[in-house]
Amino acid sequence: MADFSSRYRRWLEQLEADQLDGFLLTHSPNLTYLFNFTASTAMGCCLAGESFLIVDSRYIESARSQAVNCQPVLARDSLEQELRSILSKNKNPKLRLGIEANHISYDLFATIQSWFTTVECVPTHGLTEKLRMIKDEEEIQTLKEAFRIAQTAYGHLVKNVSPGMTETAVAGLLEFELRKAGGEGLAFETIVASGKRASLPHAPATAKRIEPEELLLIDFGVKYHGYCSDLTRVCLLPGTRKPPIYKVVQEAREQAFSRIKPGALCSEIDQVAREWIARSGYGDHFGHSLGHGLGLEVHELPALSTRSQMEVQEGMVFTIEPGIYLPGQYGVRIEDVVVVTPNGFQFLSQPDS
Amino acid sequence: MADFSSRYRRWLEQLEADQLDGFLLTHSPNLTYLFNFTASTAMGCCLAGESFLIVDSRYIESARSQAVNCQPVLARDSLEQELRSILSKNKNPKLRLGIEANHISYDLFATIQSWFTTVECVPTHGLTEKLRMIKDEEEIQTLKEAFRIAQTAYGHLVKNVSPGMTETAVAGLLEFELRKAGGEGLAFETIVASGKRASLPHAPATAKRIEPEELLLIDFGVKYHGYCSDLTRVCLLPGTRKPPIYKVVQEAREQAFSRIKPGALCSEIDQVAREWIARSGYGDHFGHSLGHGLGLEVHELPALSTRSQMEVQEGMVFTIEPGIYLPGQYGVRIEDVVVVTPNGFQFLSQPDS
Repeated sequence: MADFSSRYRRWLEQLEADQLDGFLLTHSPNLTYLFNFTASTAMGCCLAGESFLIVDSRYIESARSQAVNCQPVLARDSLEQELRSILSKNKNPKLRLGIEANHISYDLFATIQSWFTTVECVPTHGLTEKLRMIKDEEEIQTLKEAFRIAQTAYGHLVKNVSPGMTETAVAGLLEFELRKAGGEGLAFETIVASGKRASLPHAPATAKRIEPEELLLIDFGVKYHGYCSDLTRVCLLPGTRKPPIYKVVQEAREQAFSRIKPGALCSEIDQVAREWIARSGYGDHFGHSLGHGLGLEVHELPALSTRSQMEVQEGMVFTIEPGIYLPGQYGVRIEDVVVVTPNGFQFLSQPDS
Repeated sequence: MADFSSRYRRWLEQLEADQLDGFLLTHSPNLTYLFNFTASTAMGCCLAGESFLIVDSRYIESARSQAVNCQPVLARDSLEQELRSILSKNKNPKLRLGIEANHISYDLFATIQSWFTTVECVPTHGLTEKLRMIKDEEEIQTLKEAFRIAQTAYGHLVKNVSPGMTETAVAGLLEFELRKAGGEGLAFETIVASGKRASLPHAPATAKRIEPEELLLIDFGVKYHGYCSDLTRVCLLPGTRKPPIYKVVQEAREQAFSRIKPGALCSEIDQVAREWIARSGYGDHFGHSLGHGLGLEVHELPALSTRSQMEVQEGMVFTIEPGIYLPGQYGVRIEDVVVVTPNGFQFLSQPDS
């Protein structure tokens, strides 16, 4: 069991630091992080240091048995009505209620404002996400296990891929192996792109059959105890060779790895990989950012992009995934995941070689 | 290929009827519906009858080759910056820009308002979703195929479930069969709840092993050409018998089915099933609504709930899924899916018997 009480305490301290009297949680991974509870629909509301978890009847039994740091509340009518009833207990004449500005809908924001003149919705950006960005030892162990599952499954897959299979069949086999290895669900839709389709960076598996000598771009993620793996590999069929751009992508990775340590700028890590690819003549063929944080969500803070303002910190977990995509021909992306240590980094995945 | 041009024309007519000069699409299934394009991140913007689809570099090649009714635009910096540049072409001194109030984030809403004094964001609710609610013949055929895949896979599964397997292994086997039958991905996380866990209406598969004589509640969905199946079955191991509440749930279904036809109230269909369960003594054990629409999303309009204000219309597709959950014991839910016809309904799934 993760240390939910200390992360909740840090969260309450952050509310206080931001002079918030309360907070409305609408982004599901934040509920998981603070309350050990996951549902397709739920809300959290903190008022004067006390938190409520609002769920409907489908989830109330599991909320009561699992959730921590909060009081589960059954929404008999709707989650919104229950929220209203919780907020109506407020006696503060000017309650500063933090909202997750990137996640709350305009509608819910406007509805809350219409209910009370005493509640001021204060937009916040990444308040909980910034705490989630720094992983503790238990989270790192959980992520390692997610990657062990992912790589065990991939190892079984590559022994069984052959020309004539459809991309969908490859995805199905991989997902079955993920479950057999202990996976608890997919972190995102499995990408299997063969031949020319591999020049599309994010191409879900289709009914297309794999031809001899085509390469496969496989990008997949599994969930384990709520945490996501994310790994991209280029799968070569027996008798085929790595295309020339493979080496360029590998070198770009090395450039990036050489810069990862606390205090480095996220943008600088992106930059060195991007420059390497550009100098090798493929600058127009690497459009996406170099990497992203990973944890309860498959994309979370920090971003490793040219625009990122963040510094690398110990305990951050992120992907490094440069790619080169040649439209009409093929594409190569290699993705591994690291955790930042006091003096550098460790791999959470078994890196591609 | 679906008739994208006629649905787009109906959509433009709706904008006109609502006196909107433009519309901002932020809800991904609406982009799929109007533009034949799906991405993890994208925005659509319609201005003066012309639509733009804003995507990042990961998706631009597929947007250019697949998308219809719109002009794909590559966001070099961010989607928001590209949106700003599109909106800045507006010459209308008071542009009424429809927004999807339940889907747009407060942050994006506030950002747009801060950019322009000439743009008024007009909250809309379900504008596109109400068009999507009525399925055309091609959508119905696609849904039928999704259910054929689902039921083929389930048929293979039940022959291979045995005590001692974990819930996760059952989910993995089902998902593998879904892929083999032609499924293109999961519509939602597979629910496999055995024994006492079946009293939790929405319990994802865990490492728990299935004991002899336990029943399994299995709720699963597959995607086919973007459309979702959704089916719940109670799987009984050989030698076990249906529990007494099974019959009550079946009878509640029959009550609901007897009311489905154009002109009926969605709330009335929910009500008759709910009353049947209550009169049978289980009123406290059926908390969720009776059903929901199904299509590009696994939950869409109409809702079949006590609070729903909608009338049943020809072409609607929805689930009927009463359940009884006995905490600490077990639970039963049976879910099938219908399409409304001029005089009643047809099943899209092969109904449970």
